Amino acid sequence: MIREKIQQTLQLLPEFDLDMWLIFVRESAAMADPAMELVVGTHCTWQSAFAYTRDGKAVAIVGNLDKTKFEELGVFTEVRSYVTGIGEELRRLFDEVKPKRFALNVSTNDYMSDGLTCGMYRLLERYLEGTEWMGRWVSSEGLIAALRGRKTKAEQKRIQAAIDLTEEIFDKVTEMLRPGLSEKDVAAFILNLVDEAGVETAWDRSECPAVFTGPDSAGAHCGPTDRKIEPGHVMNIDFGVKKDGFCSDLQRTWYFLRPGETRAPEEVRKAFDTIVESIRLGAEKIRPGMTGLEVDTLVRTYITDKGYPEYPHATGHQVGRSTHDGAALLAPEWERYGEIPRMKIEENQVYTIEPRITVEGFGVATLEDIIVVTPNGGRFLSHPQREIWYVQ
Amino acid sequence: MIREKIQQTLQLLPEFDLDMWLIFVRESAAMADPAMELVVGTHCTWQSAFAYTRDGKAVAIVGNLDKTKFEELGVFTEVRSYVTGIGEELRRLFDEVKPKRFALNVSTNDYMSDGLTCGMYRLLERYLEGTEWMGRWVSSEGLIAALRGRKTKAEQKRIQAAIDLTEEIFDKVTEMLRPGLSEKDVAAFILNLVDEAGVETAWDRSECPAVFTGPDSAGAHCGPTDRKIEPGHVMNIDFGVKKDGFCSDLQRTWYFLRPGETRAPEEVRKAFDTIVESIRLGAEKIRPGMTGLEVDTLVRTYITDKGYPEYPHATGHQVGRSTHDGAALLAPEWERYGEIPRMKIEENQVYTIEPRITVEGFGVATLEDIIVVTPNGGRFLSHPQREIWYVQ
Repeated sequence: MIREKIQQTLQLLPEFDLDMWLIFVRESAAMADPAMELVVGTHCTWQSAFAYTRDGKAVAIVGNLDKTKFEELGVFTEVRSYVTGIGEELRRLFDEVKPKRFALNVSTNDYMSDGLTCGMYRLLERYLEGTEWMGRWVSSEGLIAALRGRKTKAEQKRIQAAIDLTEEIFDKVTEMLRPGLSEKDVAAFILNLVDEAGVETAWDRSECPAVFTGPDSAGAHCGPTDRKIEPGHVMNIDFGVKKDGFCSDLQRTWYFLRPGETRAPEEVRKAFDTIVESIRLGAEKIRPGMTGLEVDTLVRTYITDKGYPEYPHATGHQVGRSTHDGAALLAPEWERYGEIPRMKIEENQVYTIEPRITVEGFGVATLEDIIVVTPNGGRFLSHPQREIWYVQ
Repeated sequence: MIREKIQQTLQLLPEFDLDMWLIFVRESAAMADPAMELVVGTHCTWQSAFAYTRDGKAVAIVGNLDKTKFEELGVFTEVRSYVTGIGEELRRLFDEVKPKRFALNVSTNDYMSDGLTCGMYRLLERYLEGTEWMGRWVSSEGLIAALRGRKTKAEQKRIQAAIDLTEEIFDKVTEMLRPGLSEKDVAAFILNLVDEAGVETAWDRSECPAVFTGPDSAGAHCGPTDRKIEPGHVMNIDFGVKKDGFCSDLQRTWYFLRPGETRAPEEVRKAFDTIVESIRLGAEKIRPGMTGLEVDTLVRTYITDKGYPEYPHATGHQVGRSTHDGAALLAPEWERYGEIPRMKIEENQVYTIEPRITVEGFGVATLEDIIVVTPNGGRFLSHPQREIWYVQ
C-alpha cells in the first residue's frame, strides 16, 4: 500500500504545482512525522530525507546502517546513504531536482501536515545555507490533505471492514447490557472482543471504548469508570477498531427502561430523534465543493433550531489510517480550527457526523456515523442508528 | 512516575535559569512530543499547553472535552480548558507567570528536545503577537537532557529489570541455537519468549531482535532474513525489551564451530577480545564531567590502534524510556551528531557501549553492554560478555 500511496503522490505533484515533496526526519521511533505512514512505511534512526519528485522519483537518504533496510523495503527508486552527515547528499539532491517550488510538512492548520520540527527546519536551513532553495518551499498541507483524504477503493474497503466489525461488536454489547454493570464492565467486554478479533482499538485502549452512562457521566474523551448503569440512564459508547491499518469511529446510544416503562421518556426520545435527523440531513446535503463549515452549520443549526444548546465540538472529522485523519473538518469557525473549516469537501473523503445533546437528568444522547462523500451526497458506510436501543 | 518527573522538573528549573517550561502540542495520537511521556502521561486532542513554572505549578490548558480526563489524571496543579480557541488562556498564562526566560522544545541537537513543530511554533507566535514573550524563549535541551538522563533509583531499577529479562532470554537462545536454523527462526523463538513474559520489544518488532549470521549478513538495523546459520558463522543478535516503560538494548555474539574445531579461528577470537577490552576500557574510564566525544575517542582508538577499521556509528547511546534516549551520546564529531558529542557526561546516566568489528569471511563481532555512570566509572548493569559463546 506504501507503493500505491507513493504513486498517488507522484500523480498529485503537478496538481499542487510542486517539483518535490520533502520529508525531513530523524529517530522516528521517538517521534514520527505522520506522513511517514503514508509514503515511507518504516522507521529511520538518523537524519533522513524522503523526496518525491515531479519526474517520478522517490529518493530516500538515510544513515549508513539504515541503508539495507530501506533497500529491502523496495518502495524507493533510489536509496542513498551517508556516514558522517546528511548535508552533502541533501545539497546534491536539490542540485539535481532544482525545484522551483517544493513542499515541506509545515502547517498551522493541519496536524497531519505539520511533521517538521523546529530543530529539523533549522538544520535544513543550515545544510542549504548559501543556496537559493530555502526561499522556495511551501506547505504540503494541500498535497497531504489530498493524499489522506481522497480514499482509494482499497482504502474505503478497509475502512468498511473496520466499521463492519465495530457494528458486530455493538450488537453483542446490546445483548449483554443490563443495569448493575459498570462502565468498566462494559469496556472490558468490548476489549475482550477486540482481542479475540485480533485487531487493535482505534485510539488509546484506556479510552476506547469510552462508555458514558447516566446524567453524571463525564460525557466525552474519558476512560470508563466504576459508575454503574441504572434504570433511567441514557448510555452512549464511543468506540472504534483499527483493522489492517484503517480505523472506524462510531457512537451508539442505549436507554435502560425503568419499571413500567416501555419506551424512553419524551425528552429523551425527542433529543435522540433530533440527533438522528441532524445526521440524516448532514449526509443528504454534503457535496464535493462545499466547505466543512457549511455542513457543520447545517447540522449545528438544525439542533439549535430545536431549542438545544450548541455542542462544544466539531460536527465531524475524517477517518482513515487515523481516527482523526486530519485536514478538512466539518467544523465551525473557531480559533482552534484555524483555516480548516473553509477547506473544500472532496469526493471519496470519509467523514464522521457526530452531534450531541445532553438530556438533563438522563445522560448524553449522541450518535456518530460514517459517510463517504459522493457527487450525490454522503453514502453511509455505517448502518446509521435510527431508533434508541432499549435494555430492560 | 509522572508525578515524580514533574517534581524533578520543578526542581531543575532554577538550575537552567528557567521561569517556565512550555510544551505546546495538538492531536498527540498522530504525533506526540517525546516530552509528553515524561511529564504529561496521556494524549491530548486539541491544541494543548503544559506549563511547569518556577513557583512550583504544573498547569494544563486543554480543549474542553479533554478537561475531565486531565483532572482525573491528578498530576497537574491546575487544568484549564477552552471551547473556541486556546489563545486567550495562553496569553493569560504568560501574563501570570511573566517569564524572563522560558523553554520550548526546539533543538537541532537532540531529537528528544525537539517536539515543537514548525506549525505549532507559528501558532504560538500568532497567539502571543503584540506581547514581549516570544523574545524570551530558549531551547529546553539542557532541561530535558537532565530530566531524561539523570536516572532516579526507581528508573535504574526498571532498566535493570529489563536487562535481567533480556539476559535470561539470551541464555535460552544459546541453548536452542544450532546450524540450519534461519535468522527468522531465531527471531521467532525470541519473540515468543517476549510475548510469554508479557512485555514488548524495545524497538519495532520487525527489527527486534535483529539477527545477523555469517559473512553476508546485513550487519545492522535490519530485520531477520531466511539466511541459515552455518558452521563457521559468527552470529550476533541485537535485542532488548520494554518492561514497565523502560528499555534494555544488548548485543551478544556466538560462533558456530566447524567439524574438528574446539574454538573459533584466531582472527575471530582476536576481534572478539578487542571488542571485550574496548568495552571494559570505556566502562573503566568514563567519568562525570567528561564529554561523550572523549569516551568515544578512547574506545574507537583502542580498536583502530589494533589495526581494525573505524566503526561507522557512535560508541554508545543513553537508554531509558526509549532505546535511544536522546541527548548526550558517546559519539565522534560528525555533522550528523551536531553539538551532542560535546555534551557532558553526568552521574546516573545510563549508556550502552557498542563497538563493532567485521571479521572478513565470518561475520560481525559486536557486543553491546550497559553501564550506569558513577563518580568512579561505569558500573555494569548488564553482565558483560567476556567470552565468545560457542555452539556445536
